[in-house]
Amino acid sequence: MIESPVSTAPRTAATETRRTPAHAGMPVPRGVLHARLLLPPALTYCIDRLEPRLRDMCGYQLGVHDEHGHPTGSAHGKLIRPAFALLCAKACGGELVDAVPAAVAVELVHNASLVHDDIMDGDRERRHRPTVWARYGIPMAILAGDAMFALAFEALGTPERRPADHHLARTLRELMAGQSRDLRFERLGAPSIGECIDMIEGKTGALLGSACRLGALYGSAPTPVAEAFGRFGLDLGVAFQLLDDLLGIWGDPKATGKPVGSDLQARKKSAPVVAALTAGRAASRRLAELYQTSGPFETGQLVLAAELIDAAGGRAWAREEARRRIDAAWQHLAAVDIPGEARNDLEELTTFLIDREW
Amino acid sequence: MIESPVSTAPRTAATETRRTPAHAGMPVPRGVLHARLLLPPALTYCIDRLEPRLRDMCGYQLGVHDEHGHPTGSAHGKLIRPAFALLCAKACGGELVDAVPAAVAVELVHNASLVHDDIMDGDRERRHRPTVWARYGIPMAILAGDAMFALAFEALGTPERRPADHHLARTLRELMAGQSRDLRFERLGAPSIGECIDMIEGKTGALLGSACRLGALYGSAPTPVAEAFGRFGLDLGVAFQLLDDLLGIWGDPKATGKPVGSDLQARKKSAPVVAALTAGRAASRRLAELYQTSGPFETGQLVLAAELIDAAGGRAWAREEARRRIDAAWQHLAAVDIPGEARNDLEELTTFLIDREW
Repeated sequence: MIESPVSTAPRTAATETRRTPAHAGMPVPRGVLHARLLLPPALTYCIDRLEPRLRDMCGYQLGVHDEHGHPTGSAHGKLIRPAFALLCAKACGGELVDAVPAAVAVELVHNASLVHDDIMDGDRERRHRPTVWARYGIPMAILAGDAMFALAFEALGTPERRPADHHLARTLRELMAGQSRDLRFERLGAPSIGECIDMIEGKTGALLGSACRLGALYGSAPTPVAEAFGRFGLDLGVAFQLLDDLLGIWGDPKATGKPVGSDLQARKKSAPVVAALTAGRAASRRLAELYQTSGPFETGQLVLAAELIDAAGGRAWAREEARRRIDAAWQHLAAVDIPGEARNDLEELTTFLIDREW
Repeated sequence: MIESPVSTAPRTAATETRRTPAHAGMPVPRGVLHARLLLPPALTYCIDRLEPRLRDMCGYQLGVHDEHGHPTGSAHGKLIRPAFALLCAKACGGELVDAVPAAVAVELVHNASLVHDDIMDGDRERRHRPTVWARYGIPMAILAGDAMFALAFEALGTPERRPADHHLARTLRELMAGQSRDLRFERLGAPSIGECIDMIEGKTGALLGSACRLGALYGSAPTPVAEAFGRFGLDLGVAFQLLDDLLGIWGDPKATGKPVGSDLQARKKSAPVVAALTAGRAASRRLAELYQTSGPFETGQLVLAAELIDAAGGRAWAREEARRRIDAAWQHLAAVDIPGEARNDLEELTTFLIDREW
């Protein structure tokens, strides 16, 4: 795994003492705990509006239902996006609960995208269970994704209560653009590093940006402050994806839950790979030749590919860019007066997002 | 084809003189002409925000681009839903252009559903051209549908300008429920007639209801009036679908563009068929036996199926229910004071919707 490549910019005493050394056994951040309490009932309330079969499918995807349709009292995943939405509301002087509609909306959009992406990518398994399409068929899975997109807008509340679903629509459009680029990269040759960053901004940055922007708006932030939170989330999201790409190559399988070098095995054109391929070095050319071979890599080839990416500077570039994005994220909030406890929670959650091996 | 089964409730001198006898050669209603002028530039403006490949796909679906990506200056289809949105704004004292965001939103939702439905149903052709998935592949087609859903919400404008996208989200949910029921009916035995009507309300009624409700809202109607327009559109949509189902069995192939009895050939459980199957008559049982056979029907069997549906009362039921819905539609607007010209246009468009052979 990568050796603590980056840290959040403004480290305070509070976050220092809460952190355990070297990632392992990191306590669950308060933002995630809040999300775990607030999201399952709110998500359940939303999907209960659906036609029964769609409700069961969406409940299965979200994890608020088990595979028999029974309530679990919890939800799948780390609920990172909802946690950011809640904390950004608090950082703007609002209450956590003010941002529940925003938190629910981003979690629904995230899961709708996952359902559709799994169809597009032909992935049959997610979180050790069959994906929605693998279980219910492609037609119903398309519909379940559509239904969650619709619920996301509905979740934002009545027009009087809703400051900014226009932003959510824009976010969706950016998500689609990111996924469109990703699908194209898989078919075509290597993209430029700029195209790769565009794709990451769409696929990962836009929704985390939306979580932070909507959270701030629901916490009654004025528009310029909400926009600053949106940029904060966008940069964090890009940093997160870059670190995720590093873990996909050098991550410990015990921690990532994926086989060693799984992204390499899939010949994935992730950002470190693209940076290496386009660096114009000798290692770049050797990596390109290796990537053009077909059939599964042997262990020696996996090790060689990782070494070539490193030698061509792809690893250093991704680390540096992630670090730069994290600094930039906090810079966006430099002029915002965030209450002490809310700032601590936000820093803790950011650290959790960045320094992770889950 | 069916012999003028219904007519719109309040027939005025203006609509009488504009109608040509027995459907044929009916002039294009003014509402549709308005939509043809206003929609193509507005739709083009919307899709120009998309990533280029998605823009081309959505332009192809909407018909504002040809298959080479060149602007056509027009849009596909009759633009019935946008036409209703525009006219309902005018009926509420607003200007036609006030409702362009609403008209664009419903047309985008309609086309997004078509793109996804074509994948679900495996349909490779629409409007004599390859469907989006048949041309661009399923992954990109899923994404293009998603993008149009997102654009629909974005089209409604900034929060200040947007009275009611909550309704659009609810409409989407109802659409998904209708499609979910439809997919289930195809797999399972005959639904009850109530389930069938629920499905029609979702698949066809909800979006026409939304067109009328949003159009009224963008025409500055107070909420109760907008709700009345919504119910007007819902009932008209159901009537339209019932008549469409009758045309699917008894329609003239020259007028419908489909082969004789195409719905029967597909063993479609449309409303007249379900009404016949569940009528408990001798003809109901014979129809059920005929529907359970496999393989294509011979001409004699097609004729027999249509006769059995008629004998079991399915045809009369669908006509009667359509007539009842049209009366109910206008009843919803009985208390609304609609200016004369706007009322004439709305009646003309309604007549066009109902008395058609397109």
